[in-house]
Amino acid sequence: MSGKTVKVGLVGFGTIGCGVAKLILEEADFIEARTGLRLELSRVIDTDTRSPRPVKLPDGLLTDDIGRLLSDQSIQIGVELIGGTDAAKDIQLRLLQAGKDVVTANKALLAKHGNELYEAAHQNGRCIAFEASCAGGIPIISAIRTGLVANNITAMYGIVNGTCNYILSNMTSQGQDFSEALAQAQQKGYAETNPSLDINGEDSAHKLAILTSIAFGYQIALEDIYIEGIERVSKDDIRFGAEMGYYLKLLAIGEKDEQNRVSLRVHPSFIAKDSALARVAGPFNAISIFGSAVGQVIFYGRGAGMMPTASAVVADIIDVALGNSATSFKHLYLKPRSEVESRIVKIDDCVSRFYIRLMVKDQPGVFAQIGKIVAENAISISGVLQHEGAGPGNTVPVVITTHPNKQCKVTAALKSLDELDTVCSKPVCIRIVDVPEDKE
Amino acid sequence: MSGKTVKVGLVGFGTIGCGVAKLILEEADFIEARTGLRLELSRVIDTDTRSPRPVKLPDGLLTDDIGRLLSDQSIQIGVELIGGTDAAKDIQLRLLQAGKDVVTANKALLAKHGNELYEAAHQNGRCIAFEASCAGGIPIISAIRTGLVANNITAMYGIVNGTCNYILSNMTSQGQDFSEALAQAQQKGYAETNPSLDINGEDSAHKLAILTSIAFGYQIALEDIYIEGIERVSKDDIRFGAEMGYYLKLLAIGEKDEQNRVSLRVHPSFIAKDSALARVAGPFNAISIFGSAVGQVIFYGRGAGMMPTASAVVADIIDVALGNSATSFKHLYLKPRSEVESRIVKIDDCVSRFYIRLMVKDQPGVFAQIGKIVAENAISISGVLQHEGAGPGNTVPVVITTHPNKQCKVTAALKSLDELDTVCSKPVCIRIVDVPEDKE
Repeated sequence: MSGKTVKVGLVGFGTIGCGVAKLILEEADFIEARTGLRLELSRVIDTDTRSPRPVKLPDGLLTDDIGRLLSDQSIQIGVELIGGTDAAKDIQLRLLQAGKDVVTANKALLAKHGNELYEAAHQNGRCIAFEASCAGGIPIISAIRTGLVANNITAMYGIVNGTCNYILSNMTSQGQDFSEALAQAQQKGYAETNPSLDINGEDSAHKLAILTSIAFGYQIALEDIYIEGIERVSKDDIRFGAEMGYYLKLLAIGEKDEQNRVSLRVHPSFIAKDSALARVAGPFNAISIFGSAVGQVIFYGRGAGMMPTASAVVADIIDVALGNSATSFKHLYLKPRSEVESRIVKIDDCVSRFYIRLMVKDQPGVFAQIGKIVAENAISISGVLQHEGAGPGNTVPVVITTHPNKQCKVTAALKSLDELDTVCSKPVCIRIVDVPEDKE
Repeated sequence: MSGKTVKVGLVGFGTIGCGVAKLILEEADFIEARTGLRLELSRVIDTDTRSPRPVKLPDGLLTDDIGRLLSDQSIQIGVELIGGTDAAKDIQLRLLQAGKDVVTANKALLAKHGNELYEAAHQNGRCIAFEASCAGGIPIISAIRTGLVANNITAMYGIVNGTCNYILSNMTSQGQDFSEALAQAQQKGYAETNPSLDINGEDSAHKLAILTSIAFGYQIALEDIYIEGIERVSKDDIRFGAEMGYYLKLLAIGEKDEQNRVSLRVHPSFIAKDSALARVAGPFNAISIFGSAVGQVIFYGRGAGMMPTASAVVADIIDVALGNSATSFKHLYLKPRSEVESRIVKIDDCVSRFYIRLMVKDQPGVFAQIGKIVAENAISISGVLQHEGAGPGNTVPVVITTHPNKQCKVTAALKSLDELDTVCSKPVCIRIVDVPEDKE
């Protein structure tokens, strides 16, 4: 069986680019047997053409001149893997204008400029495939767009940043503090030298924007998403939470209610220890999705890394080459911003349970003061944890957990609590998320 | 936006058929918005045209005359949902000959006659789509065939029968014996009145045959699969296993080694309590897959039921209508039986760890007798559990766990143990499966 040859050009020869080149070069026979397509790596573009890489390209393939890719009419697919937003956007637009379909893993770019790029693709009669942009090798985008296509998706709860999950897992299991856990993640290659995009929650928000766009069928903008990172998480709160039955995870949450209002947020979340997502440890990702027909489905795997991400990129290349991506991309209709904006639930209106930790002076009357403020804001308490302290005059942690309350009420109460003389440091507030689980 | 109309004929108006009809009738607008396709239910065939159903069809749609579907050239897709093998095979062949693509949830039929049906489809230039045949609403077939297409899949471990998992979960968590747990499963609708196909492991084997065919690219026959059901599982063994750190699951296992030899088996399996599959409780399914690039991925959800299965059927209808199924079906190349047979590892040659329970007379010398037989068969023991018994003359359970050993050696040892006068009943033997898990 001699397959149809599909010529591929790669822009960006970093870690993922090397993984993609490796898969195409080493597995061409295997892929041809399975798909009837002969993938051919025809051009690799990178500004750095000299550094050694873990994969050996055929001579003459690597160049810093993107013109040699753009002008080569025989190359059908351009794979953009340089990351970032400005140069990458320009490259994707030029690839589309040159009549090439685009495959990308660039979540930041799609989260920020996806709608513009999708429009450009439609205008050029091309498609953009982006399975690798979310959750690495887990075929989550294809699942939402094809396997679950008959479902009205009402909610998703994802652990979509392996760096944060690795850090929080180690803080939980080994009692490390944040800086220790971050250093270990960096040493193991699970965190970048500059980890801010991961730990501040932005990376998770990029993925949430992409996933909820296609799941809910809305043009989602990054500013629709409330974002809180894990930088200020203390091991004390992780320990107190664990005592109360919770593990801390950075969750990306998208919920759609019956009026089609959408709540989108990324924040540290205490979730029940025995829930499926609580057990996702280390650098792994998992996404729990609720569909109207299918109920709950969970997808689990490696959300990053050279070969898992390359697996998704090459799957997209094949899907594009077979023509399947074009068909589904043609129907990527997202309700425009003008219709969406009014449906976004502001964080102040979000209802959640809360974990609140106060450092208070161990003296008579403190509980009464706290109770009064909580009652004045009509917040209902579900639990209190106070260990015996060192005695009068010392500072002790008091943890309060609440029943579901609107964020704005809790924010007001926190402000009043912070103003109390007996509250010695800024109150800590972490949301408790009762991640739904399908039972029998 | 007015979409392309796709006419669908349904054969089989039972539980799943009603779910499919409901989704098509009620969600046509939603599906059209997402896919550009207007699904139209044009004909429903069932021998029973009178019983009330939970979905109301437009007048005149339901008939017992399949000729009215076969002869209607405007109907592009025939959905076979009658189950069973003989009549269903005939119907699928007639649908294909009438120029219709086929969508089916019929795992028994595909496991037994899939190769013949695929061949008939190829000859008629049609395709067969069968996402709903395995693991209900979990899009596992699409994941293997598209999302993971660039991976050499080396192993899969699945909980693919919700009935068995529900029974074993209840035996574990509530200490029920098998018949109690089965009765409860029947009462809750998780087991059929005649549950034999589920509990004897055959249903799991059907799914394993389909999943490993497409994952490994081989024509797999049912006789390649070693099958053991859960009918003889006792709550005592579940309790002893739990004491030793294991939960009992009915696993469907497909493993491919570096020489492309394949081991296929369905049997009760003790797996470590803290493994991901051990935590899959109740009627849920989960499948853990290992791919050369992606590493471990796990898919979890409802493996059966009206709407989850209908979700997969309708996803397939859409995939067929968009033309995507045809493309991938064209390349469904499975190595023929002549090349496959010699690669199937016989159960006697399979290496596993084992849990062996003996009911022995509580008298001096018994341990020496057991130890001698075990040593003669060169079986290495990893653990022994014997609780204090009622005293000399009584019967006590002795549990032995082994390191990895070839099945044939263990079979021989069991035979000798069974012949001992001091062993009072047939030895119980359950495999311990060290399900691999990707760690950091």
